[in-house]
Amino acid sequence: MVLLEFSMTPLDKGESVGAYVSRSLQIIDESGLDYRLNPMGTVLEGEWDEVMGVVKKCFEQMSADCNRITCSLKIDYRQGARGRLESKIASVESKLGKTLKK
Amino acid sequence: MVLLEFSMTPLDKGESVGAYVSRSLQIIDESGLDYRLNPMGTVLEGEWDEVMGVVKKCFEQMSADCNRITCSLKIDYRQGARGRLESKIASVESKLGKTLKK
Amino acid sequence: MVLLEFSMTPLDKGESVGAYVSRSLQIIDESGLDYRLNPMGTVLEGEWDEVMGVVKKCFEQMSADCNRITCSLKIDYRQGARGRLESKIASVESKLGKTLKK
Amino acid sequence: MVLLEFSMTPLDKGESVGAYVSRSLQIIDESGLDYRLNPMGTVLEGEWDEVMGVVKKCFEQMSADCNRITCSLKIDYRQGARGRLESKIASVESKLGKTLKK
Repeated sequence: MVLLEFSMTPLDKGESVGAYVSRSLQIIDESGLDYRLNPMGTVLEGEWDEVMGVVKKCFEQMSADCNRITCSLKIDYRQGARGRLESKIASVESKLGKTLKK
Repeated sequence: MVLLEFSMTPLDKGESVGAYVSRSLQIIDESGLDYRLNPMGTVLEGEWDEVMGVVKKCFEQMSADCNRITCSLKIDYRQGARGRLESKIASVESKLGKTLKK
Repeated sequence: MVLLEFSMTPLDKGESVGAYVSRSLQIIDESGLDYRLNPMGTVLEGEWDEVMGVVKKCFEQMSADCNRITCSLKIDYRQGARGRLESKIASVESKLGKTLKK
Repeated sequence: MVLLEFSMTPLDKGESVGAYVSRSLQIIDESGLDYRLNPMGTVLEGEWDEVMGVVKKCFEQMSADCNRITCSLKIDYRQGARGRLESKIASVESKLGKTLKK
């Protein structure tokens, strides 16, 4: 299992891109994968092909009516680990002995 | 104001890096800037020098006892906007008419 | 066609990771896709499935003997454009009227 | 010394952003720091404050007439190392025993 964070943005639609981002979130929310939305992207957990399949669907939809798209992804693979959408944050809070803003 | 997401990781400390990440979160939490921790990084909101100052403090601390460090940052600037740690997510939820996982 | 830049690094192999990076470059060089290596990553040009297929091969090889891997990717899609490994740089040099360091 | 790769792009100027990217390259080229331009960004080598100072100058110029800007940075710090704009690539080529596309 991997954690994959990504954001995908059209460059040719002006400074307000929320309508396009929302369509991606619709795909993500319906994917069946566990995820967490944050102010700068969305983090998915799943097997490589599962998470990359969701990113590809978002790209296919966005490229249907956007001429230029920028997309950044970051992947964190750890052998044998799962449930890390929650456990990575819990581990940091436990080490610090305090609750952080999430 | 900008939103800045970053993660900073030592390469020479083995696969468990939570102790080093926790020290950065201590700095972030005490910085006075508003922030949100997610499973892949932390998003800060502030002026350019403020958020970059926090990243630099984290780097100075980590480089004191780590020989190799990788760090990724992503910045989203929007003129005149603030409070976007909450408003970007709220905008997507409003457009979709549903609550998303955060 | 898209441009995709990526770098992939094991976290559990110490600070010298060149042996692992070299194995990825072997895969990239034999992929048949056009690419450019730079000091922080490799940029590939191809269709979505082509470039993502190369990244996946690199991941499969690295995860065979690395327990934790970090990977960052950035994609630039522009409808109808190809040959951009050269043309994007040439365009900047032309606008500035000078040769830049590459 | 660190290696820092970055790219900075306006979101509100349409799909052709070369004019804005060129202004950043002018700043980089005149900075006195060593750098390499690639199709997806520019890699600088220098001390933390030096390379971050260049990124800030580019941001100040771009934000003077762009309302929304996206910027991604990646940093690779290795204690005591310098000259890595050339040596990292040379090391990979040496390990593979062949010349790669750059």
